[in-house]
Amino acid sequence: MRVRMNISYNGRDFSGFQYQHDYRTVQGTIEKQLKRMHKMPTRIHGASRTDAGVHALDQYIHFDTTIDLPGDKWAFIFNRAMPDDIYIKDVDIVDDDFHSRYHAKGKTYRYKIYTGAKNPFYKGLVTHVPDQLDISKIKEAAKDFVGVHDFTTFSSAKAEIKNKVREIKQVDIIKTEAGLDIVITGTGFLYNMVRIIVAYLLEVGRGLRKADTLNMIAQKDRTIIPKTAPAEGLYLEKVWYENL
Amino acid sequence: MRVRMNISYNGRDFSGFQYQHDYRTVQGTIEKQLKRMHKMPTRIHGASRTDAGVHALDQYIHFDTTIDLPGDKWAFIFNRAMPDDIYIKDVDIVDDDFHSRYHAKGKTYRYKIYTGAKNPFYKGLVTHVPDQLDISKIKEAAKDFVGVHDFTTFSSAKAEIKNKVREIKQVDIIKTEAGLDIVITGTGFLYNMVRIIVAYLLEVGRGLRKADTLNMIAQKDRTIIPKTAPAEGLYLEKVWYENL
Repeated sequence: MRVRMNISYNGRDFSGFQYQHDYRTVQGTIEKQLKRMHKMPTRIHGASRTDAGVHALDQYIHFDTTIDLPGDKWAFIFNRAMPDDIYIKDVDIVDDDFHSRYHAKGKTYRYKIYTGAKNPFYKGLVTHVPDQLDISKIKEAAKDFVGVHDFTTFSSAKAEIKNKVREIKQVDIIKTEAGLDIVITGTGFLYNMVRIIVAYLLEVGRGLRKADTLNMIAQKDRTIIPKTAPAEGLYLEKVWYENL
Repeated sequence: MRVRMNISYNGRDFSGFQYQHDYRTVQGTIEKQLKRMHKMPTRIHGASRTDAGVHALDQYIHFDTTIDLPGDKWAFIFNRAMPDDIYIKDVDIVDDDFHSRYHAKGKTYRYKIYTGAKNPFYKGLVTHVPDQLDISKIKEAAKDFVGVHDFTTFSSAKAEIKNKVREIKQVDIIKTEAGLDIVITGTGFLYNMVRIIVAYLLEVGRGLRKADTLNMIAQKDRTIIPKTAPAEGLYLEKVWYENL
């Protein structure tokens, strides 16, 4: 049978989601517990392969098992075994054709920024931008991301995928007590796309660039936005499925 | 001249305040920057030698220097050089006889606890107690700590100091959104004293022990409270000086 887990994790002490030999990863940590239970390797699949330092408030994984347990038992057993920085929110037994990645219709990412004096307790959790930010300018630049675009300008040169057309459904710029959250929902994202969009929006907010999003997109040239915002402020906030 | 710095730090990634060769410590990090500026070793003294994993919202250090700079310049230079988890809040030039440790009249520590489901983002910052806590029982046990007592029962067996009499001025049990803060102010604390007091109060709150503080103190026996609460929830909240 197939098991789907809804999990959250603090990415600060993980070398990302994806398994890497000799590194502490989310996949590796969960698969280690599955191996303990199955006495054999069990592979998991995640909706998003978050990078090193990136957090998840709402990630989904699935795996196949011969162990017949109800969802809440899986959650109980896992939460006792998991380290402090992974939490199993919910577990369901799902149809055998469910796939956490292929069935995801979209994802929402939140990028957390704080401004002003440094706060040591935000280390690894919120990105520090000492400068004052012009929020109206950031909003002006952000709205033009919405729509179907070729996002070559806003994807890592390392992205090997050919088709760089994606749809962004919504971008919200939210003033918080500490600074600013940038919340982006799309049908899919290219490698580093959110962090490059954020790097661009922060340069606009700091007055280092004008709001010129459609022109940037049209140029399809990654070199015109060389920066990538740090991983620490990025949260996978929601994965959208048809029936969830 | 003598310089006093008021600093805060996130203890999560430090092996404590005190210098240790080959370990990342708060003292080592600050002294490295001082060495860079003075081209020779410069020793700092802290009000409290916080343990590995313990945080500081309001720690004081002092050192002697031949570099003639106003306080705000020291703060500016240091904050540019310090890592993400140390922040220099304020710097003053003080009298040559000021001593951050010997002149401290008292200290306030805050211990942060959260209850209920695990929150991965509290890792290293707030201690998790899954059980429900009986706050009225904790308050009942806490109030009897106030006063002048021999705290042998509540100090680490490793404490080498002979005189274990200390005065606790105030203990507050504060309900928070996440759980509970325990705030203790005293004229001085023995090694691990706050964390042993918290371990005892949590056992009372979980119904594993009755509130019997005065009897515990009277026994002067460390073995009757063998636990020490984890470092991650502990914050040095304030150092009290006569003229501050």
